Amino acid sequence: MKVLDLMKNLRESTEGKIVLLVADGIGGLAQKPGGLTELETAKTPNLDALAKIGVQGLSTPIKPGITPGSGPGHLGLFGYDPLEFIIGRGALEAAGIGFAMQDNDVAIRCNFCTTDAAGTITDRRAGRIPSEESAAVVQKLKVIKIPGVEVFVEPVKEHRFVVVFRGEGLGDAVADTDPQRTGVPVLEPAVHAGIKCSASEKTAKIAKEFHDQAVKILADEPKANNHTMRGFAKKPHMPSYADIYGLRAACIAVYPMYKGLASFAGMDIVGKATTLAEEIDVLEKEWKNYDFFFVHFKYTDSRGEDGQFDEKVKMIEEFDSIVPRVTALKPACLIVTGDHSTPAVMSSHSFHPVPTLIVSDLARTDATEHYGERDAVLGGLGQFEAMYIMPMAMAHAGKLGKFGA
Amino acid sequence: MKVLDLMKNLRESTEGKIVLLVADGIGGLAQKPGGLTELETAKTPNLDALAKIGVQGLSTPIKPGITPGSGPGHLGLFGYDPLEFIIGRGALEAAGIGFAMQDNDVAIRCNFCTTDAAGTITDRRAGRIPSEESAAVVQKLKVIKIPGVEVFVEPVKEHRFVVVFRGEGLGDAVADTDPQRTGVPVLEPAVHAGIKCSASEKTAKIAKEFHDQAVKILADEPKANNHTMRGFAKKPHMPSYADIYGLRAACIAVYPMYKGLASFAGMDIVGKATTLAEEIDVLEKEWKNYDFFFVHFKYTDSRGEDGQFDEKVKMIEEFDSIVPRVTALKPACLIVTGDHSTPAVMSSHSFHPVPTLIVSDLARTDATEHYGERDAVLGGLGQFEAMYIMPMAMAHAGKLGKFGA
Repeated sequence: MKVLDLMKNLRESTEGKIVLLVADGIGGLAQKPGGLTELETAKTPNLDALAKIGVQGLSTPIKPGITPGSGPGHLGLFGYDPLEFIIGRGALEAAGIGFAMQDNDVAIRCNFCTTDAAGTITDRRAGRIPSEESAAVVQKLKVIKIPGVEVFVEPVKEHRFVVVFRGEGLGDAVADTDPQRTGVPVLEPAVHAGIKCSASEKTAKIAKEFHDQAVKILADEPKANNHTMRGFAKKPHMPSYADIYGLRAACIAVYPMYKGLASFAGMDIVGKATTLAEEIDVLEKEWKNYDFFFVHFKYTDSRGEDGQFDEKVKMIEEFDSIVPRVTALKPACLIVTGDHSTPAVMSSHSFHPVPTLIVSDLARTDATEHYGERDAVLGGLGQFEAMYIMPMAMAHAGKLGKFGA
Repeated sequence: MKVLDLMKNLRESTEGKIVLLVADGIGGLAQKPGGLTELETAKTPNLDALAKIGVQGLSTPIKPGITPGSGPGHLGLFGYDPLEFIIGRGALEAAGIGFAMQDNDVAIRCNFCTTDAAGTITDRRAGRIPSEESAAVVQKLKVIKIPGVEVFVEPVKEHRFVVVFRGEGLGDAVADTDPQRTGVPVLEPAVHAGIKCSASEKTAKIAKEFHDQAVKILADEPKANNHTMRGFAKKPHMPSYADIYGLRAACIAVYPMYKGLASFAGMDIVGKATTLAEEIDVLEKEWKNYDFFFVHFKYTDSRGEDGQFDEKVKMIEEFDSIVPRVTALKPACLIVTGDHSTPAVMSSHSFHPVPTLIVSDLARTDATEHYGERDAVLGGLGQFEAMYIMPMAMAHAGKLGKFGA
């Protein structure tokens, strides 16, 4: 029996609410060995007060040593095994721009590229044309019509855009048309070698038609006169929070990517917050309407990615400052965590486990007094995979019955 | 390769003995956040002395957040994956009254209920008739004879009783006859929807014959004039301790449930102890006859279930007091643990991990000096699933060879 089945079988409906407060990339590293991490450097009186009455530990996003992207990082936090539920690149890209995929959609990451008169690729990224320039070219592609399907074309960043085909019976086992090198033509869309799938053949045919029309439209573009297609993907097949936990779940986030990921889990996207303070406004406003809230704070990760140690410290302090507004709502279970670490010294996501704190009347308090990496090592939750955060949250909220008699 | 296969392949026969000393529900919670648990409050000089020379940690009975019943809780302690080996409710109920199931038995949990003249259920529990009254009615049902099978009818508590059919070729894929509500008749026994199983059809037919005869016998009963049948179950298919570990294993327990669970693992049930002191008498007496002893102490759980913090503390102190008699026997490996936590503040089993202590000449001593929740967090065993206790016990007893060359 799998963990999600246990949740379905054991869940109980109770009044208390669960808040999953995610500071993206909050875990970090010291600037030199033996020093303090960003989180240990930050003044976090509110989180420390919670550490004193709660229980903390270290969550491993995927498996030891594995650095997650935002997709698998959040799937783990949401309780899905991120090695079992894979979100295709096309679907992740669509989520990233806030495109609401439907069950009969196939989404594709596309790159503008430059080809010569013979159709040979000379630049796989069309000189990384600026976003505004690229968006104007994408606009031209919106005239493309293909019988039997609805076609969406949306700009992303620089040379990237997303195409979505919406129609009955479309498969996604279609190989990338990007040959991954210059000096050769763009590949023709085709079903993955060795696979027989008429639904995917249909998609490949539609993709070819799209590409044929696009090449005509782009003929006079100086750089973006062609495009490749990658990561054909349907919406991931995931049971929803209602199915698994019987929870009415809400997502409060600023960035489209996280809203998209939450929507794959069947969460409602609520509010139009543009700052953390506004996110908490939404939390307060929607408090009565949901059982579970995923609240996402982006900037701890952003400053980590930028390599700005001191700025990340400030973001953590901003994050700490809103904690009393959350606890004032008296959730039955509050979880504070991140989807992964983003050490400023690495300027990237990392594999390091993430300090994770649970506050609840049922928390078995440990001896730690600060929320942070060194304390978390000594915390009562020990070290565990992120996919167990939701079972622990359900348990600490009194929402799980007994397994077996 | 699974853990049980590793045990079968690597086990070695040595002189030393293993004692698995289980204080049921020993783990707990403080009465307020930051306070001491029952185990931390109790004076446990003997267990603390073992903590100083042994190694401790926290065992998770099933998975993080999952609260086990006694069945899966003990299966984990016995080394079986409790998510793989599931004991059906009927078999667990039979175990609970000490009924020794055989391979060709199907056991069923039955409830007396009250039906009106039209056969419609008016009370699903027959007014929760007292145990003595119920036992007298059960006695009447013992006259039931069904050609081709042996029939056992045994009282449990209040309106509950157990029926066992013993015969060749009986399946257990039979649905409950309890409609789970009043105002409708008792359902007719039938194989689960969507399943084809002639062995289970045979059982359903026998169950119908049993019910038909029972209804006639019960016709004049004021309350218990009908009954429902639930949890049809064969004996679980588990490899025995002899198969897995090559151990002659004995169970010393007071309560029938734990004897039943141990018998599923192929342990001999020895002695007729009614107190912990008598259980240790049995341990001493049988010391030469077995390689492994499961000794079960019930009352830590009972007082926790009753919500009696101080009384649970006393039970832990009683448990501590017999420890020197166990160590005097010089087991090669002594494990002290519980099947789950039962915090008095929750008055129920809980999901919290369980302090688990291993004492052996091969134990790598950690820095902890008390057996208890906070110390266990910092113990050398870390946090682990309960199903790994037996492999660790075998290893610490010097009974496991090397894996691979």
